[in-house]
Amino acid sequence: KAPGILERLNAGEIVIGDGGFVFALEKRGYVKAGPWTPEATVTHPEAVRQLHREFLRAGANVMQAFTFYASDDKLENRGQALKITGAQINEAACDLAREVAKEGDALVAGGVAQTPSYLSCKSETEVKAIFKKQLDVFVKKNVDFLIAEYFEHVEEAGWAVQVLKTSGKPVAASLCIGPEGDMHGVSPAECAIRLVKAGAQIVGVNCHFDPLTCVKTVKMMKEGVEKAGLKAHYMVQPLAYHTPDCNCQGFIDLPEFPFALEPRILTRWDMHQYAREAYNAGIHYIGGCCGYEPYHIRAVSEELAPERGFLPAASEKHGLWGAGLEMHTKPWVRARSRREYWENIRPASGRPKCPSLSTPESWGVTKGHSDLLQHKEATSTQEMKHVLEKQKKVKSSA
Amino acid sequence: KAPGILERLNAGEIVIGDGGFVFALEKRGYVKAGPWTPEATVTHPEAVRQLHREFLRAGANVMQAFTFYASDDKLENRGQALKITGAQINEAACDLAREVAKEGDALVAGGVAQTPSYLSCKSETEVKAIFKKQLDVFVKKNVDFLIAEYFEHVEEAGWAVQVLKTSGKPVAASLCIGPEGDMHGVSPAECAIRLVKAGAQIVGVNCHFDPLTCVKTVKMMKEGVEKAGLKAHYMVQPLAYHTPDCNCQGFIDLPEFPFALEPRILTRWDMHQYAREAYNAGIHYIGGCCGYEPYHIRAVSEELAPERGFLPAASEKHGLWGAGLEMHTKPWVRARSRREYWENIRPASGRPKCPSLSTPESWGVTKGHSDLLQHKEATSTQEMKHVLEKQKKVKSSA
Amino acid sequence: KAPGILERLNAGEIVIGDGGFVFALEKRGYVKAGPWTPEATVTHPEAVRQLHREFLRAGANVMQAFTFYASDDKLENRGQALKITGAQINEAACDLAREVAKEGDALVAGGVAQTPSYLSCKSETEVKAIFKKQLDVFVKKNVDFLIAEYFEHVEEAGWAVQVLKTSGKPVAASLCIGPEGDMHGVSPAECAIRLVKAGAQIVGVNCHFDPLTCVKTVKMMKEGVEKAGLKAHYMVQPLAYHTPDCNCQGFIDLPEFPFALEPRILTRWDMHQYAREAYNAGIHYIGGCCGYEPYHIRAVSEELAPERGFLPAASEKHGLWGAGLEMHTKPWVRARSRREYWENIRPASGRPKCPSLSTPESWGVTKGHSDLLQHKEATSTQEMKHVLEKQKKVKSSA
Amino acid sequence: KAPGILERLNAGEIVIGDGGFVFALEKRGYVKAGPWTPEATVTHPEAVRQLHREFLRAGANVMQAFTFYASDDKLENRGQALKITGAQINEAACDLAREVAKEGDALVAGGVAQTPSYLSCKSETEVKAIFKKQLDVFVKKNVDFLIAEYFEHVEEAGWAVQVLKTSGKPVAASLCIGPEGDMHGVSPAECAIRLVKAGAQIVGVNCHFDPLTCVKTVKMMKEGVEKAGLKAHYMVQPLAYHTPDCNCQGFIDLPEFPFALEPRILTRWDMHQYAREAYNAGIHYIGGCCGYEPYHIRAVSEELAPERGFLPAASEKHGLWGAGLEMHTKPWVRARSRREYWENIRPASGRPKCPSLSTPESWGVTKGHSDLLQHKEATSTQEMKHVLEKQKKVKSSA
Repeated sequence: KAPGILERLNAGEIVIGDGGFVFALEKRGYVKAGPWTPEATVTHPEAVRQLHREFLRAGANVMQAFTFYASDDKLENRGQALKITGAQINEAACDLAREVAKEGDALVAGGVAQTPSYLSCKSETEVKAIFKKQLDVFVKKNVDFLIAEYFEHVEEAGWAVQVLKTSGKPVAASLCIGPEGDMHGVSPAECAIRLVKAGAQIVGVNCHFDPLTCVKTVKMMKEGVEKAGLKAHYMVQPLAYHTPDCNCQGFIDLPEFPFALEPRILTRWDMHQYAREAYNAGIHYIGGCCGYEPYHIRAVSEELAPERGFLPAASEKHGLWGAGLEMHTKPWVRARSRREYWENIRPASGRPKCPSLSTPESWGVTKGHSDLLQHKEATSTQEMKHVLEKQKKVKSSA
Repeated sequence: KAPGILERLNAGEIVIGDGGFVFALEKRGYVKAGPWTPEATVTHPEAVRQLHREFLRAGANVMQAFTFYASDDKLENRGQALKITGAQINEAACDLAREVAKEGDALVAGGVAQTPSYLSCKSETEVKAIFKKQLDVFVKKNVDFLIAEYFEHVEEAGWAVQVLKTSGKPVAASLCIGPEGDMHGVSPAECAIRLVKAGAQIVGVNCHFDPLTCVKTVKMMKEGVEKAGLKAHYMVQPLAYHTPDCNCQGFIDLPEFPFALEPRILTRWDMHQYAREAYNAGIHYIGGCCGYEPYHIRAVSEELAPERGFLPAASEKHGLWGAGLEMHTKPWVRARSRREYWENIRPASGRPKCPSLSTPESWGVTKGHSDLLQHKEATSTQEMKHVLEKQKKVKSSA
Repeated sequence: KAPGILERLNAGEIVIGDGGFVFALEKRGYVKAGPWTPEATVTHPEAVRQLHREFLRAGANVMQAFTFYASDDKLENRGQALKITGAQINEAACDLAREVAKEGDALVAGGVAQTPSYLSCKSETEVKAIFKKQLDVFVKKNVDFLIAEYFEHVEEAGWAVQVLKTSGKPVAASLCIGPEGDMHGVSPAECAIRLVKAGAQIVGVNCHFDPLTCVKTVKMMKEGVEKAGLKAHYMVQPLAYHTPDCNCQGFIDLPEFPFALEPRILTRWDMHQYAREAYNAGIHYIGGCCGYEPYHIRAVSEELAPERGFLPAASEKHGLWGAGLEMHTKPWVRARSRREYWENIRPASGRPKCPSLSTPESWGVTKGHSDLLQHKEATSTQEMKHVLEKQKKVKSSA
Repeated sequence: KAPGILERLNAGEIVIGDGGFVFALEKRGYVKAGPWTPEATVTHPEAVRQLHREFLRAGANVMQAFTFYASDDKLENRGQALKITGAQINEAACDLAREVAKEGDALVAGGVAQTPSYLSCKSETEVKAIFKKQLDVFVKKNVDFLIAEYFEHVEEAGWAVQVLKTSGKPVAASLCIGPEGDMHGVSPAECAIRLVKAGAQIVGVNCHFDPLTCVKTVKMMKEGVEKAGLKAHYMVQPLAYHTPDCNCQGFIDLPEFPFALEPRILTRWDMHQYAREAYNAGIHYIGGCCGYEPYHIRAVSEELAPERGFLPAASEKHGLWGAGLEMHTKPWVRARSRREYWENIRPASGRPKCPSLSTPESWGVTKGHSDLLQHKEATSTQEMKHVLEKQKKVKSSA
């Protein structure tokens, strides 16, 4: 039997994660932006299977079952009207991940994410029941380990960890926060400490920010955990988008989210830099989230090939540092088959009428408020009201 | 039996093409940049099949068998050492295209592209023999029509059309040129006239330039053909990259080619504009080439849904003009669920240290020459020598 | 007595012009943007005198009397309510230019520019009378030569040349056009031929476009004149703003005109390139227009110092190619004291939320029309009506 | 007699400063970049006088005598070989400032700046003697108040204040630091406290950073002073360049310094925003430094006209918020005569091949070091060695 996630990390191995399924499958036509729910595991398994395979070929050691936002409260909330239950989706997701994992050296992970129930102020018991329902599937399908990911509130993430721990399986916890901390203003260091204390053996961040911002945030977590005299492994699964202009709520507040992010997509060479910086920071579980395509993960694998001792399968179709151009008929294209060339390139956008940075929209900021007023059509739904109340509660308790 | 390509175009129908397979499969790990050859049809049919399916779901009416650069001279030249023959690759490609085409309302096309034989000054007889070999497979597999595409020299394209015409099947001819014409300086209008006279029923351009440049070029072709009192249908299958800074040889001369083109990727909204302009220009076969992902073709289908009378299958996973965001919890994200918002967005690159435009590299230009001198490692290979001789021949004959 | 403008040019000498007074004095507080009239020659002679001196020190061989828009019809039209007559302004301007010219090796030029009378369809006789009135002052003050500059219509420029020729003094004619020609669509080549035939000994362009565009336009003029078997000298006095995004009417249609052009200002190094290209194109009267500061003219003089055989006076306060930094305490600033450094710098804007290029506004273009509708407050004044009639006339006669 | 600087500030009046003379006169041809010394007060008084006048017309209440870097040690160090003594320069500077100040409602200030003597580790006694020498001139010429400005080290600024205080005249102290504090890492708050304790009645910052960064820094100073229970007035005289990409040493480390800063120049509308933010922050002495032209100061005056109760003289030549365009013949240009238009403009650079931001060069940063190695020609001068020793001293004492 293949070694588990903790055996690998304890042995000092690098574990390479996969990329995010939601955005990749949206581009391929199987996930709807807005709801972002994973019913494709049931309706179009071939598409989900193929994406797993591509990440496997790219060097990923983890097949995350495609269970994002597959909690029943979310499915209901987002109008998933296909008469498919959360359990069906989660089971199919586990089967697909396992099927492909067996084709290579990969583990299967089951994941839970933040819930509408928490945001609408349901009780700890109610929120935990949501997680328990997904966990039941993961246990039944015997995944290799569990991930609580994409949490903006460390409190909810802690509840998730507590639930997942009851299974006896290894638990990773990953927040979608940046250096400024969670939505209650809890610092990355403090977040990490709480998650480790709740039982997570691996902590880190995913989504919402670009790779270097995420690495920076995990470094802050690591320093906090170490200062507190605790021990943990670290993971990072960032966006494949450059987001230097984000505020604390990440790329969702950028005006380009989610349908005009293209100019921000990282190149494979940006990924080399990311992989190296993450590794140098002592982060050994290195993957991706929204925006990642298989070639991004391959670049991570290629950068860390010296440490891992091998190249991923997909590198049979990729010359390192542009080596595939060595035979080009044009000498100036041949001249691009060098590491120095690609490491130093400053790629043009081809969009001279566009700016380099945007102004994030947000709550509480004057600009955000005026936007609010401008768009009166965005009238407050019931869910909206709950969010606002939650925010008020947070503020008054701060 | 489904109506053929000419029946459709004669009836005034819009025919939506698929996107380029080479770049899409390179990102997925199945094609090597540099050789760009399609042996994946044999070695990884599931990956090729899945990409066909995604374009079909996105609304494509044409499944182009993945036979690009699958001529024997190219395969040999590019060091395809897998012991798979061109015939095997071409046959597998046809089978995969047909298998998926049957799942929807799509035709199968077989294609040939420019050959190293032509560039190295082989005779018309020799070059035509190359095309004939691929054509034999297409006839055996009974594809629905034929495409001669990605030709920089109208002379070679004309030879290809002549060969393909012998099959009795409809023939489309598509050059990879811009408004300045082919590599011998033949204008788009004159190129189109020659191709129509050679027997092509559909003419147009593909690859090398961005959508609006390609539409402009096909308009020049159309004007030329009409002025000459000839008749034809028109096709366009451009890059999904913004390339306002290209010179006459297209995106290959941009310093970002092929590994740092990300900031240039078109959004789905750019695709709406492209589809509309192409249609307004009287071009009815509208598809894509390098850089296209399935969601780009879906956007073309969505823009032209009023004319076609239906949305593509994949639109079940896509709200028109951002409608999927209508339920978002944040009011400023909900405010993005409007056509006006996305039509007017000027997306930021997130790369403030990068320029908007690049300087293309090229022959003959002073800068190009000095680059040549700088990179002495780029010594002239045998093929290079041939190219230079060809160029000399061209110049002296001009 | 110093050699005249034609003696100099006939002898193959380079004549360096001054920079534009209107924009420079607007920044200094003496000219009002909008009317752009030169009453400062009477009200603030010290400011005008000082600017002359700075251009003289920078190497200028021509002191253009500050008479731009000082025709009586313009002064009246623009609401110049200071009870100063055009004659007073023009006389004072000539005196100031002569006073400073004597301090060095410079000639005095008197200039006329396009008139509101022409735009409002006054007769040739009426328009010529306007020019004659200014000419009378120039003759009385005995300027060294005459310039008809800033004409958008070659017809009016021709009338001006005819009037100025009656004085017996050398006449230069300079249009504010780009490669697309004048507002009636007359090509640069044809414009130049007409002006030479009207009697101009020097022809060229000024204002409205950036240096490289202006050089390109004058090259087209030169080719036209030479093909027609005529002879002339050539002059160029461009903007000191980068305007690659202009349409045929130049920088006035850019949204940044006239109060947000700062990011477009040329560096001194851009001026070196301009001076070299102008000289290489066979243009020997090289100066500047709007946006030029004295250091821009100094850079022109420094670039052409090898040809001229001397540096300008102001170079005592300027190290060539950054040599003044040789003693800087920081080594990386010292490293900037090299020609190669400044020739290759790509200066950042410091404005990541701004684009690189704008979309020019204009008549006739759909976008322009909608802007028109949007701004109903911009109701048609009497003058406006005349302009529109003029345009109609032009179109119907074309 | 006109009220003094403290009377004005105590009365709640806004005091508008002038702009920097060094950069403005470099562009005009009277100051050499590199040495930056003010011998023009003796050699070209008309140029200095004219610039004073323009700032006076623009609304400045302070004429700073042009004595920057006019200490004898600097003049000697920078190779000022004109046989003019520091005393001569300083005296002429005071006379010119007084002459123009009398023409309006302005005070004369004498200033001292950081010295090479301090950087080369001379003793407090020696450094103070340098300041005393300049002060003797200021007392003899009876300036209205004194400014210790452009100090990177609060220690040296404190010494300057102590010397200036001996005169009995009001003393302002202004550092060229940003939010990260002085070169020893002393925070803005602590710097301000020390300067107030040393006797400065006005504290603030000048040069090195853009307006909003400077305002932010002075706010930190103000908060520090108020927390410490002290009292002071506040001043700010920033760059007229956008410098969001600066590190702690300011614009000198930007690769564009000092000869390619043009794309960063602030518009008059940026100045409105600056003036408002400075005033809102409780800063009442508001002026400019390097890059300021008279129209920038006029914009400050116009923004604060409601508070001051009057417009400056130069506003006779300026329509507020573009009002001068109201009569333009083109409707789309007329449409620019609105505050909303100019407040929201995002001006293009016209430079699509340039980035938006640069990477500052500096010591200690890896990149800086490699630059150092690359430019071996930048060999360490004597002064350089002193600077390095100083730095070492600072580090070891920290």
